[in-house]
Amino acid sequence: MHDLSAPAPLSPDELEAALRRIGAERYHNLHPYHRLLHGGRLNRGQVQAWALNRYYYQSSIPAKDATLIARLPTADLRREWRRRLVDHDGDAPGTGGVARWLKLAEGVGLDPAYVQSTAGILPTTRFAVDAYVAFVRDRSILEAIASSLTEMFSPTIIAERVSGMLANYAWITQETLAYFTPRLTQAPRDVNFALGYVREHARTRAEQEAVLAALRFKCDVLWAQLDALHHAYVAPALIPPGAFTPEQT
Amino acid sequence: MHDLSAPAPLSPDELEAALRRIGAERYHNLHPYHRLLHGGRLNRGQVQAWALNRYYYQSSIPAKDATLIARLPTADLRREWRRRLVDHDGDAPGTGGVARWLKLAEGVGLDPAYVQSTAGILPTTRFAVDAYVAFVRDRSILEAIASSLTEMFSPTIIAERVSGMLANYAWITQETLAYFTPRLTQAPRDVNFALGYVREHARTRAEQEAVLAALRFKCDVLWAQLDALHHAYVAPALIPPGAFTPEQT
Repeated sequence: MHDLSAPAPLSPDELEAALRRIGAERYHNLHPYHRLLHGGRLNRGQVQAWALNRYYYQSSIPAKDATLIARLPTADLRREWRRRLVDHDGDAPGTGGVARWLKLAEGVGLDPAYVQSTAGILPTTRFAVDAYVAFVRDRSILEAIASSLTEMFSPTIIAERVSGMLANYAWITQETLAYFTPRLTQAPRDVNFALGYVREHARTRAEQEAVLAALRFKCDVLWAQLDALHHAYVAPALIPPGAFTPEQT
Repeated sequence: MHDLSAPAPLSPDELEAALRRIGAERYHNLHPYHRLLHGGRLNRGQVQAWALNRYYYQSSIPAKDATLIARLPTADLRREWRRRLVDHDGDAPGTGGVARWLKLAEGVGLDPAYVQSTAGILPTTRFAVDAYVAFVRDRSILEAIASSLTEMFSPTIIAERVSGMLANYAWITQETLAYFTPRLTQAPRDVNFALGYVREHARTRAEQEAVLAALRFKCDVLWAQLDALHHAYVAPALIPPGAFTPEQT
């Protein structure tokens, strides 16, 4: 018998609609730093700060995915998630998403060794990204998978970003932005699996609320990174002690 | 034989001087939000945001200290560190530092149940504070103890804060700021132990560098919290989705 005092579960379609509403309200394409970036209104140092800090996020994604693979109970699930490791780490030196992001950072004028050292990133970048890895380690597998669902919204942001950056920054080339091209097909494939998993496995209202909270958490992780960039490099432009300081140009 | 290729260890006094230099460069008394706060230039909503977010830090300190106690190898060390638990959690309901901070939050006009829920804190507050607890769990005991040494610099900031807030905000009373009074004696006592431990146990240059890095990390944890407050509530005053929004007054 259904407990009348507990809220009724959502249907899978209602759950998906609730996930999409979170994206519409909280995804970081709504953040001013994103709008400044793709609108061509950042200077070179501000674009460098974005590429430098975002490298820490990109290079932590394989740790996040391996953490989840280590917890998945079946070979089927692990193989499915392993594709993400391959996407990010590649099959040979210099291939894969992390290497392509390093190329992007180099393309906007940063020393790749400095980028890889992560010495100049904002402390908040590290705190936010590490919180994401810890979430995937410590929460339920359902919540860990749900936290990946920000990729539902990423094709839009990538399209805006690439076209905006190519149109507005003469010193940024298509080759520099090569990171993004495969993401346009990888992200929908990954979402297809993760969204299907969540639709099928989040059955009770409590599980569904946990899934929605996981997506809000992940939106916070992305938003907080842009907040920190915005505060340090745009307004009021207060760089924390020890963080990357753009050259005066 | 001393390895001539490795840098020579610092003397204990040199190490302490290096720790104090980090405080002089990176402690959060240098942050604009602190200066605005004690200078009476924040409005009530901005003071509330500070008290609300700082509650998450205060209420996580016992978790941080218990995490360290669980790792300490001797009863002598555990008893020494246990005093901090007593200071923060008290000996009866409504006593101790966490309860006094809740009084402070109530005194500046917040609903204590809302504060305790932590529902309105900035995501960056959570990420930074959780990073501190994780650091104490995952790093060496020497680094964990060294990360507490920001208290070397806290008597100054407390004195500035209390006198400045009482002088500048008519709606803040001595009773509301009762949290800070015992800290003026507790912090030096705690520092006395932790600094002595670090001076004695950080013998190699590598250990000393790890100690200095731990203190820089902790300064980053405090600084990042004020950065997030400043960005959300002062300049450019962009409140992240879902975070505390002051009432218009």
